[in-house]
Amino acid sequence: MPNPKTAIRILGMLLIVEGFFMWLSIPVSLIYKEGEVLHFLVAGAITAFAGAIGYFSTWKARLEVTKRDGYVIVTSGWLFFSFFGTLPFLLTGAIPDFTNAFFETISGFTTTGASILDNIEELSHGVLFWRSLTQWLGGMGIIVLTLVVLPVLGIGGMQLFAAEVPGPTPDKLHPRVKETAKRLWSIYLIFTAAEVILLWIGPMNLFDAICHSFTTMATGGYSTRQASIAHWNSPYVHYVIIIFMFLAGTNFTLSYFGFHLRFRKVFRNEEFRYYIGFIVVFTVIIAAGLFLKGQGGVETSVRNALFQVVSILTTTGYATDDYLLWTPALTMMILLLMFVGGSAGSTGGGPKVMRIMILIKNSTQELKRLIHPNAVIPVRMNKIAVDPQVVTNVLAFLAFYVVIAIVSMVVMSALGNDLETSMGAVAATLGNIGPGIGNVGPADNFNHIAVAGKWFLSFLMLVGRLELFTVLVLFSPSFWKE
Amino acid sequence: MPNPKTAIRILGMLLIVEGFFMWLSIPVSLIYKEGEVLHFLVAGAITAFAGAIGYFSTWKARLEVTKRDGYVIVTSGWLFFSFFGTLPFLLTGAIPDFTNAFFETISGFTTTGASILDNIEELSHGVLFWRSLTQWLGGMGIIVLTLVVLPVLGIGGMQLFAAEVPGPTPDKLHPRVKETAKRLWSIYLIFTAAEVILLWIGPMNLFDAICHSFTTMATGGYSTRQASIAHWNSPYVHYVIIIFMFLAGTNFTLSYFGFHLRFRKVFRNEEFRYYIGFIVVFTVIIAAGLFLKGQGGVETSVRNALFQVVSILTTTGYATDDYLLWTPALTMMILLLMFVGGSAGSTGGGPKVMRIMILIKNSTQELKRLIHPNAVIPVRMNKIAVDPQVVTNVLAFLAFYVVIAIVSMVVMSALGNDLETSMGAVAATLGNIGPGIGNVGPADNFNHIAVAGKWFLSFLMLVGRLELFTVLVLFSPSFWKE
Repeated sequence: MPNPKTAIRILGMLLIVEGFFMWLSIPVSLIYKEGEVLHFLVAGAITAFAGAIGYFSTWKARLEVTKRDGYVIVTSGWLFFSFFGTLPFLLTGAIPDFTNAFFETISGFTTTGASILDNIEELSHGVLFWRSLTQWLGGMGIIVLTLVVLPVLGIGGMQLFAAEVPGPTPDKLHPRVKETAKRLWSIYLIFTAAEVILLWIGPMNLFDAICHSFTTMATGGYSTRQASIAHWNSPYVHYVIIIFMFLAGTNFTLSYFGFHLRFRKVFRNEEFRYYIGFIVVFTVIIAAGLFLKGQGGVETSVRNALFQVVSILTTTGYATDDYLLWTPALTMMILLLMFVGGSAGSTGGGPKVMRIMILIKNSTQELKRLIHPNAVIPVRMNKIAVDPQVVTNVLAFLAFYVVIAIVSMVVMSALGNDLETSMGAVAATLGNIGPGIGNVGPADNFNHIAVAGKWFLSFLMLVGRLELFTVLVLFSPSFWKE
Repeated sequence: MPNPKTAIRILGMLLIVEGFFMWLSIPVSLIYKEGEVLHFLVAGAITAFAGAIGYFSTWKARLEVTKRDGYVIVTSGWLFFSFFGTLPFLLTGAIPDFTNAFFETISGFTTTGASILDNIEELSHGVLFWRSLTQWLGGMGIIVLTLVVLPVLGIGGMQLFAAEVPGPTPDKLHPRVKETAKRLWSIYLIFTAAEVILLWIGPMNLFDAICHSFTTMATGGYSTRQASIAHWNSPYVHYVIIIFMFLAGTNFTLSYFGFHLRFRKVFRNEEFRYYIGFIVVFTVIIAAGLFLKGQGGVETSVRNALFQVVSILTTTGYATDDYLLWTPALTMMILLLMFVGGSAGSTGGGPKVMRIMILIKNSTQELKRLIHPNAVIPVRMNKIAVDPQVVTNVLAFLAFYVVIAIVSMVVMSALGNDLETSMGAVAATLGNIGPGIGNVGPADNFNHIAVAGKWFLSFLMLVGRLELFTVLVLFSPSFWKE
């Protein structure tokens, strides 16, 4: 049995923080004279007050977090953040419907970027700021979750790259968690600041630069414009964003090594090589396809291909081109990328490059095992043999991913969506990407999905973001027994 | 290095047998006075002669079959059978184009049932007989392959149920292979004969009864009618075929036990229970959907649902109804079933119920492992713990299956097919089912697919039929080294 008091205490603390972040929209509202100061003040106050009740009512609880508490705290943390995070949308009247507001908020905190908004540009700056901020906060949560919490919980092979981080001991969430988190967050902050500056000196204004930097580093993909990044017909903007999407989709531990000039360690990392390999291979194929189709010259084809590949692979979801208007085969390549995802330990979603890499390696090893049935042929990563149990963990994760995706597609089509839309909506939300294929492509949004479908997809965003098991384990009866 | 002489010797022997089977169309042609006696005579003679050359030129070779020889013989066996099997189609002019003839023949020998024929009823009885016979022979091959050869090769967890069969020792293909094969073939023969009689006493004539019995027991699905089984608007015919499809999709070892009245052994078999479970669950859902949609009364809805579910699950591919005209969600259920397949050790294709069962069990165990990280929690089958290495084999098989399916969908869409057709064609051929979704549904055929696509799909039928690894291992460079 998890300890509810510990969970309530920590959740309370987090909600207080969320409330303060809501108040950051107050100066934005003042600057643009949008008269929503009171709305943000109240939204933040309600959130912080709810948090304070939880925090102080469990004042005497011992803060000893077991693994089971970890699962409860993580899942309910994202849920409560999303629940209270709807307040700015609801109180300002920007999104009056609760289902829509919840969808938009959980899509933010899970850094998915799937939107129900038909006309983003009619929202106030204060609301747009909060919308971008949900993703940036979600990204911070993910960094801590994937690099500090999940390795301890041992989910789906997450322990594989945890050894690299100066991190916690494997039994309880250690105080050193704080140090690791601070280190990684400082990188996150530095990257965000750098992107703001680079975008601002280009054709973007400061507000757009800040909002897009928030959502790039979180691989979230919320834009302040209905046309997404295609709004800026500027190669400079496109390339800057490509670079920062790439960084956001890279394991933050590697960026940490990069900052300490230990580049050999970075380039020797096998996941990083596969990550670059995926980008290069898919970009070359798609760029060739676009060029041959006559969709612009070499530079335009390469840029459009590269932008969309990096955007989908890192699960950001920005668009400078509508891949549904490419040829079916090129669109299929994009759908394929949706089932890869960013690097482990990045803010990217999806199954992650590392797991696909283990899958590929284990498959080729399986052929070798058939030829040499008596030899022990392990899967190696960074030249070290991987524990077979971890390989099974990874394969079980991928199996879960596929099964959840398939069952969800059936659910979505039972709710009246056509086959392509069902596939696209599931791939885009489970993988925390944002736009999908079918009627939820980059030029479209999720507003037309039925209410039940929106709640179901919200659930998928949560399941995908929390590496499946964190959420699913809560449905296991034995979890709640002693 | 495999020994080419052994392979040539055995292939030669098999081709002689194939030639004789071609001559079985001669009496058919005589009875129906279709004047194609000479064509079948020549086709059979060429095949048997080619076989004889191979057989006698390697007269001195020692018949000691190593595992590596096994892979070569199995893959090239199916290829040579399909290559020579085109002769009756080509010589009679029934299918004048070689690509089409090869597609139709390999679709027969792999018991897939995907057809390029626009008007099946214009073919002569002799040709229709050969077409059905290719599937029946393919089914015989599959029984030996999956229950006798593959367990020895240790492919994708095939060793799991091999222990049950009074079979060969695990190192070399033992002489006892013959006994096991004979036992299983006699069941295959008895079932075929029983179905012929039951269909014949119904509204079918003897010729149709024989052809359909051939293709039912092989889970092949070739019909003598363009409308498939829907041609007979007779519940009796539908139920008889449902029963025999069910038997053909059951592990033949269990049928062997059934014949020896050891029913407890049958019903205690977990794969068999899952197999029945899948049929019941999918039939209930689809029947409810059809009934609520107003597509006929209770009996019609249940019969149509049951027929299509059993036909697709066992990978037969017969149709009494066009599932593409159901609701998207019900069609999706059918697509889902395409990725399950028949029981291991049956003539059914696809990933097999056993592997999906291991996948499900390992996934639920994975959740338990998260809750109790220090406990050893094995996957159990028939109450016995499964070797973790075998679980990895099974998961690797499924991973390969999904990856091959996805890459093939990209290839098919690059060849100009839309998304649904690409998915449908790949699922239907890789799973050896026959009809797919999109433009290759049950009311359609594969004739409109481009030439390159037909060859690619032919390759998929072979890869799917031979449990992936048997073919793929041949592409591994280390296979050909000493």
